[in-house]
Amino acid sequence: MNHYIGLDLGGTNLKYALGNKHGEVLVKLTRPSQASESLEKILHNMFAAVEKLLEIAKLEKFNVISIGVGSPGSIDFENGRVIGEVPNLKGWTDVPIREILQERFRLPVWTDNDANMVAIAEARVGAGKGFRNLVFITVGTGIGGGIIIDGKLYRGASFNAAEIGHTSIIMHGKRCKCGNIGCLEMYASAPAIVKLYMEKLNQENVDFDEDIISTELIFERVKERDVIATETLDEACEALGAGLANVVNLINPEAIIIGGGVSEAGESFLGRVRKVVFDRALPAALPGLRIIKAELGNDAGIVGAILLAADNT
Amino acid sequence: MNHYIGLDLGGTNLKYALGNKHGEVLVKLTRPSQASESLEKILHNMFAAVEKLLEIAKLEKFNVISIGVGSPGSIDFENGRVIGEVPNLKGWTDVPIREILQERFRLPVWTDNDANMVAIAEARVGAGKGFRNLVFITVGTGIGGGIIIDGKLYRGASFNAAEIGHTSIIMHGKRCKCGNIGCLEMYASAPAIVKLYMEKLNQENVDFDEDIISTELIFERVKERDVIATETLDEACEALGAGLANVVNLINPEAIIIGGGVSEAGESFLGRVRKVVFDRALPAALPGLRIIKAELGNDAGIVGAILLAADNT
Repeated sequence: MNHYIGLDLGGTNLKYALGNKHGEVLVKLTRPSQASESLEKILHNMFAAVEKLLEIAKLEKFNVISIGVGSPGSIDFENGRVIGEVPNLKGWTDVPIREILQERFRLPVWTDNDANMVAIAEARVGAGKGFRNLVFITVGTGIGGGIIIDGKLYRGASFNAAEIGHTSIIMHGKRCKCGNIGCLEMYASAPAIVKLYMEKLNQENVDFDEDIISTELIFERVKERDVIATETLDEACEALGAGLANVVNLINPEAIIIGGGVSEAGESFLGRVRKVVFDRALPAALPGLRIIKAELGNDAGIVGAILLAADNT
Repeated sequence: MNHYIGLDLGGTNLKYALGNKHGEVLVKLTRPSQASESLEKILHNMFAAVEKLLEIAKLEKFNVISIGVGSPGSIDFENGRVIGEVPNLKGWTDVPIREILQERFRLPVWTDNDANMVAIAEARVGAGKGFRNLVFITVGTGIGGGIIIDGKLYRGASFNAAEIGHTSIIMHGKRCKCGNIGCLEMYASAPAIVKLYMEKLNQENVDFDEDIISTELIFERVKERDVIATETLDEACEALGAGLANVVNLINPEAIIIGGGVSEAGESFLGRVRKVVFDRALPAALPGLRIIKAELGNDAGIVGAILLAADNT
C-alpha cells in the first residue's frame, strides 16, 4: 500500500506523520517549529521531519508517494507557495514550499492553508463524512474556515475563500487588524471572548487576575451558573450565530462543522450557536441543516495534509 | 438547429421567447402575468405563451427541444417545483411547474429561481463571460443573487444559496420580514434607499411629495450635487459594499456583477460600491477582482431560462 507524508506547520509546533489514502495516521511525531525565529529554522525542522519519516518508512517498508504540507496564512495551492507574510511565522513570506521540498526530497509536494486542511479532513473522515456541501469553521485565537462544495475544497479565485472570521457582522463596529470593520473575529474568537469577559468584570467592579482568565475558565464558570460568564458566552454565541446565519443564507450548506479551541466548550456553546443560526437564517435554508462539532481534534491538520497528498498523486 | 422556449415569470409581466443554445433570442414577447389574481390566471398565461411560441416555431420550422422557466421565490430545481409561498404571486405555492407544463406540452421542462436565471445568463453571455467563479447580485425592490462556481450555478443544499439580501450587516440593526436582523436588503434595496432619503428630508424639514421620490430621482439629484441625495447614496453604497466585502471574504470570486434597477444609476453608484469593497475586503482576495455592471438588462431572465433548458437537454 502507498503511504504519504503530512506536515502541519504551526506557530509553536511542527506535527508530522505518515498515513495512507484513507487518512489513517500510522506514525505521528511532533517537534518545535521555531517559527518565531527564522525561515532557516522553520525549514531545518521541516527537513528533519521529512527525513525522520522517510527513515521510518524505509524500516517499515512503506512506499512514500508524496508530501502534503499545511501552513498558516494564504497559500497558493496551484503553485505550492506562501502568498505574502504570515503573522507569527518569521521570514515565512512568499516561500515556495513545493519547490524547496521537491528539490530536496524528489517527491511531489502539495500545500494548502491549515484551515483548509482541517476542512478536508473533517469532510472526508471526520464530522462531515457523508455531506457533499459543508462549511468548516475553526474558532480559536482566530476564526478561519474552509468550504467544501460537491465534495471538493473550494479555494476561491485567489485562494482566499472561507475567511469567515473577517466577515463583518457590525458594519460600523470594532476595527479589525485586517482593515475591515466589525469582523466576526472581533466578537467571537477566544481573545475577543476573554476581553469581553474582563470588560464585564471591570464594569461590575469585580477584582480578577488577568493572567488566569481563559475561555476554559469562562466556560467552567458558565457551568457553575456564573451570571457574567453566561452573559459573555451568550454575546459571543449571538455574534457567531449571526455570522454563521450569513454563511447559511449565502452558501446554504448541508452542515456546518465547528472546530478549534472554543468549540471544546461543548454543548453549552454549540446549543447557543445553533439556536441563533436557526432564529436568524432563512427558513428555506434550514431543513436538514446540521451544526456539529468537529471530530478529529488536533490531528485534523496532519490528516488533511495526508489526504491532500494522496488525492493529488 | 435546435430551439428552446424561455419563460420569465414576474409579478406584473410574463416574458416569453424562443432562442438557441448560445442564448440568442430569436422571438421575444410579453403579456401580463396576472400574478396578483390567481394560480389559474398565471397558468393560463403560461400556457398561452408556450402555445404562441410553438405556433411561431412551426411556421419558422424551428425544432423546439425543451422549456426553461424562471420564477420568483424558492425553486426546487431537481423536482421542478416552487417551494412554499412566493410574495406577490397569488396561489403560486408549492406549484409543480415541471409536472404541469410537461403534461400539457410533452416537452422536458427545467425551472429555477429568477435571480439564478439572470446569474446564468450574465455569466455565460453577459458581463461575466470568461469568468469561472463569480457572484451576481441584483439590487432592486429586493436584493437577490446567484453564485457561479467553476462555471456552474451553485444552488446550495436546499436551493437557497446566494440570498445576499438576507445577510446581516448590522447584527442588532433593523428587523427584516425574513426573520433576520440587519439584512442588507433593509439598507441598500430601492425601497430602503427611498425610505432613507425621505427620513433625511424630514430631518432637514424639507417639504416633498412622497409619490415622486424614487431611486431614479435620488440619483438624478446626486448628479446635481444635492447634499441630502448624495448622503443617501453614500450610506446605501457603504451598506452594499460592506455586504459585498463579506461575499468577497467568503467566496473570493473573480468578479461581482451588479444588476437590477439600482445598478442603472451608473458609475456614481458602482464607483462608490467598488471603493467600499476594496477598502473592506481582505487584500489577498482583491487581486484581479472585477466589480462590474450587468449587461443584459431586462432580457437576462429569458436568456437564462433558454440557456437552462438548452444546458439540460
